[in-house]
Amino acid sequence: MNHPPTITDICEAAARIEPYIHRTPVLTCRAIDTLCGASLFFKCENFQKVGAFKIRGATNAVFSLSDQEAASGVATHSSGNHAAALAQAARWRGIRAHVVMPKNAPEVKKAAVAGYGANIRYCEPTLQAREDTLAEVQSETGAVFIPPFNDWRIIAGQGTAALELCHEIADLDSVIAPVGGGGLLSGTALTVSARSPNTQIIGGEPANADDACRSLKAGKIIPANNPTTIADGLLTSLGDLTFSVIRQHVADILTVSEEDIIQTMRLIWERMKIIVEPSSAVALAVVMAHPEKFAGRRVGVIFSGGNVNLASLPWKL
Amino acid sequence: MNHPPTITDICEAAARIEPYIHRTPVLTCRAIDTLCGASLFFKCENFQKVGAFKIRGATNAVFSLSDQEAASGVATHSSGNHAAALAQAARWRGIRAHVVMPKNAPEVKKAAVAGYGANIRYCEPTLQAREDTLAEVQSETGAVFIPPFNDWRIIAGQGTAALELCHEIADLDSVIAPVGGGGLLSGTALTVSARSPNTQIIGGEPANADDACRSLKAGKIIPANNPTTIADGLLTSLGDLTFSVIRQHVADILTVSEEDIIQTMRLIWERMKIIVEPSSAVALAVVMAHPEKFAGRRVGVIFSGGNVNLASLPWKL
Repeated sequence: MNHPPTITDICEAAARIEPYIHRTPVLTCRAIDTLCGASLFFKCENFQKVGAFKIRGATNAVFSLSDQEAASGVATHSSGNHAAALAQAARWRGIRAHVVMPKNAPEVKKAAVAGYGANIRYCEPTLQAREDTLAEVQSETGAVFIPPFNDWRIIAGQGTAALELCHEIADLDSVIAPVGGGGLLSGTALTVSARSPNTQIIGGEPANADDACRSLKAGKIIPANNPTTIADGLLTSLGDLTFSVIRQHVADILTVSEEDIIQTMRLIWERMKIIVEPSSAVALAVVMAHPEKFAGRRVGVIFSGGNVNLASLPWKL
Repeated sequence: MNHPPTITDICEAAARIEPYIHRTPVLTCRAIDTLCGASLFFKCENFQKVGAFKIRGATNAVFSLSDQEAASGVATHSSGNHAAALAQAARWRGIRAHVVMPKNAPEVKKAAVAGYGANIRYCEPTLQAREDTLAEVQSETGAVFIPPFNDWRIIAGQGTAALELCHEIADLDSVIAPVGGGGLLSGTALTVSARSPNTQIIGGEPANADDACRSLKAGKIIPANNPTTIADGLLTSLGDLTFSVIRQHVADILTVSEEDIIQTMRLIWERMKIIVEPSSAVALAVVMAHPEKFAGRRVGVIFSGGNVNLASLPWKL
């Protein structure tokens, strides 16, 4: 696909991945509605296969390949949910997945990716080493590179979560998705702008990694500069494809503090009795931190995932 | 009500409480099914109002009172979910709830019960002080005592969770509920034995608080002797009413170690991305610890609640 996905492309992606993924629930929580003074609808991708929305894009990309393209497998560089998702999607298709990971990646992530059956190739923890190693893997195996977010097939797949949300909940005033590389936010934006044109699309970003917010204001991509945030799914900078969609369709990107993210994550665990990862909490933290923008409104909030190391929680124990 | 609830009574309880409580979901988890070699159906009372099944019995009892009985309010002694549930149910009915709590109860529990609007009366942490203080409160206020479990109205209310489970999932080979005072297990037993007579009813209990297991074997109530278990909802001994039902309808009570409870609780959090309290984990831990009894079977598992102090988790951090 060499153009931004249309709503038809996103519907086709939804049909393509439907046999494999979960249709996740949209939950509500009266206690949190009362706290926020708004009606919130939480699209729970924390319950998704592999624990995150990433399986949507990866599965769409893997099943978009022709048999000939797929025969030599797929490859990516990632130490996070995309690598696990690509490995799972490749296993469903019956092909190999090669994953380049920095050798200092946390053991728990190495184990997760290995557990989904990927062939892992370790590299030095630099961007150059990562790209060189990926090129090596591709030339050795002929595998097709599936990028983590800056790819129309991935963006179309990520847009299917909002498709389900819009199908279930009408008349949303806003939809909020967290933004790292921008795959989820740009997919959400393409879906929502087509299906519910009066709904405002908003990105949520850690203030500590606010490159997307600054990029949107500047009108050009401003890369993140070694950000540190508890929302470790949101460290990445935008790509040219995701940025082009975000510029066109996203009304605003709002930032939240680390303290806001942690408090909101704990609130979700305590009140909703569900486990979300810090990146998910960012989307609700935006509502909590900017109550005047959402008072009395119907707001869709995309919980991106639920992969948390339970042995290391960010609040005082 | 001065007889064990019939299935008609339980259906009436369900209708009585339906405007107030959640119809909780029945979830499945392929990863846990694979681990257990069984098909498990989790009735998720952790998502219930007040965070536990206790709201069912309390609401049924409060709304079973005549206007005249209700006028002077309700009273109980409890430091746990029953007190919070009774306070919430009383608030729905617009009457006072008086709760006798030991003065050394954890602050988090005091705050929860106060948060639901109860009038709290503190007492010394002995059974005698608790009973004396409750008698005082009743004579001062005329409030009706609503016991935490040994009461047919409470038992009928707790049985409505299994009613929903049986309505949604047919042909269960077994249903497992945790057992403390026996309100949930006896309500479950009355419902399941009427609605699905070929389904085996099993209790799950911490080995460290195995008084119900020993009582069932002995054919008489053997009180717990200062038990200590992480499953703090299951410390209580059976009452004569709950025991009479359990004796008649429960096939077996199986026990699990503290380590089993903790590992199972963590497994549920990690794989299902939901928060359950240790007492809930007991029911699944029974399946994990006795795989030969459940292999290939369809098993209903009642998750009793999700109230956990997130600042103090039972695994290594």
